[in-house]
Amino acid sequence: MGGGRLKIGVVAPASRLSPEVAERVPALAARLYPNRTPEIVFHPQCFATHGHFAGDDETRAQALIDVANDESYDAVWFARGGYGSCRVAETVVGRLTGAARRKTYVGYSDAGALLAALYRAGFPSVAHGPVAQDVLRDGGEAAASRALAWMVERSPQALEPTVNGARKTAAFNITILSQLLGTPLQPDLAGHVLMLEEVSEAMYRIDRSLFHITSNAEIRRVAGIMLGRCSAITPNDPDFGMNEEEVARHWCKKSGIPWLGRADIGHDADNKIVPFGLPNALVT
Amino acid sequence: MGGGRLKIGVVAPASRLSPEVAERVPALAARLYPNRTPEIVFHPQCFATHGHFAGDDETRAQALIDVANDESYDAVWFARGGYGSCRVAETVVGRLTGAARRKTYVGYSDAGALLAALYRAGFPSVAHGPVAQDVLRDGGEAAASRALAWMVERSPQALEPTVNGARKTAAFNITILSQLLGTPLQPDLAGHVLMLEEVSEAMYRIDRSLFHITSNAEIRRVAGIMLGRCSAITPNDPDFGMNEEEVARHWCKKSGIPWLGRADIGHDADNKIVPFGLPNALVT
Repeated sequence: MGGGRLKIGVVAPASRLSPEVAERVPALAARLYPNRTPEIVFHPQCFATHGHFAGDDETRAQALIDVANDESYDAVWFARGGYGSCRVAETVVGRLTGAARRKTYVGYSDAGALLAALYRAGFPSVAHGPVAQDVLRDGGEAAASRALAWMVERSPQALEPTVNGARKTAAFNITILSQLLGTPLQPDLAGHVLMLEEVSEAMYRIDRSLFHITSNAEIRRVAGIMLGRCSAITPNDPDFGMNEEEVARHWCKKSGIPWLGRADIGHDADNKIVPFGLPNALVT
Repeated sequence: MGGGRLKIGVVAPASRLSPEVAERVPALAARLYPNRTPEIVFHPQCFATHGHFAGDDETRAQALIDVANDESYDAVWFARGGYGSCRVAETVVGRLTGAARRKTYVGYSDAGALLAALYRAGFPSVAHGPVAQDVLRDGGEAAASRALAWMVERSPQALEPTVNGARKTAAFNITILSQLLGTPLQPDLAGHVLMLEEVSEAMYRIDRSLFHITSNAEIRRVAGIMLGRCSAITPNDPDFGMNEEEVARHWCKKSGIPWLGRADIGHDADNKIVPFGLPNALVT
């Protein structure tokens, strides 16, 4: 950080950022940190459009690479989820340098593909946490503030409450982790407390994805599973007959993975920070 | 088959069978084969209910095990897809005997989890093909007739037209195969022509699942991928910008898997038989 203002780069490896986020987030940061306001740079790629994505694969990959490899930036904040990170993750990680390795990365949901790839590559400061777009949620300034509090000052209050430095942790959207299994992006989570959350999926899909995750031999080496919030669950016809916690407990029991209870993460304004690995000190 | 009538057992490892199927399918079989009408036995479990499923896991597993291990049956026909096969597949395969190994198995969609497990266990006569419930589709008697033609007489006309005995084949629903990757159910498909189809998924999900499938090192050993029909694709917001063939070609190119064109399979009445491995002669 070189003693100056913290500099955060926002890039969108998946879906396009809503333009008002680029107004609201810097204003929020100025209110939160009047004396040391972080500089938040929204890469123009955040607002590009290519079908489903914020620009084509090369555009999205290059924006992330440019910011990550730029020594002047201290952190990379993923603009939002949606879909598209898996399309660029392997390419991106293969082109990152030492400057990228020294940065903090924050995001979740679809960005889990990138968090996985970065963590697998040994990056020390990768965290599940709110994306910039979360500022637009009801009460979303709390979410964006939490991500800033982690990037700016490593605030312990931003952490998921069970994260205490005693055990390694990781957090994923259920569907995203499922679709990384058996690929070069799957990280080694042996000994980690694995926190999982979901949004907008039917119960049968949550069940199927948890079958998938808990049937994986590498995943079975985790210290245990904690279930975050599963929100906006879509209708199941017929009624599934079990809720998300019953399903998670079922698969933990069947797979022999310890069930460790509920985690304070999810697709909402209360979504907390979960560092990958052990929570590290400020990267300087 | 002991020279008598072919005996087919219908079991439902996933969702509950519609009761009228048990009327329509035997009537169809009697019309198709007046002189050698196969005996079609619908296990009572097909009509059980347990939340989403046709009975709880143990009920569904036991019905399949009982029929498969019964020497008097020649074939096991999966009642329908839906969801639930992955919950019982490993248990079932672990409890099957030599009598089970000598049978023919036909199904698709969710039943792909069982086809995968049986094929992985070395069962010689496992085939993707219509389920009993398909008789209720528009033109669905053609689908049910095709499954019967494979089970009763190994009719070459029932086969997907590119299946010729020269190359091994396998066929899966895209989502189902994705969710088997990295589990003990994943079959060795090295050298196989892999045919894939999908129903009722958004394009971004098809893209993500094809990322997953084509990023798997074992899958990359297939002889190539053929794309079946992707039907009832749900809306993508924004428009995805690519159709299913463009997406499949993209992932084949990126992964180095040969793109072999379109396959005549799908969630419809035209869904053809695709044997797992090489098409074998009648199992007697």
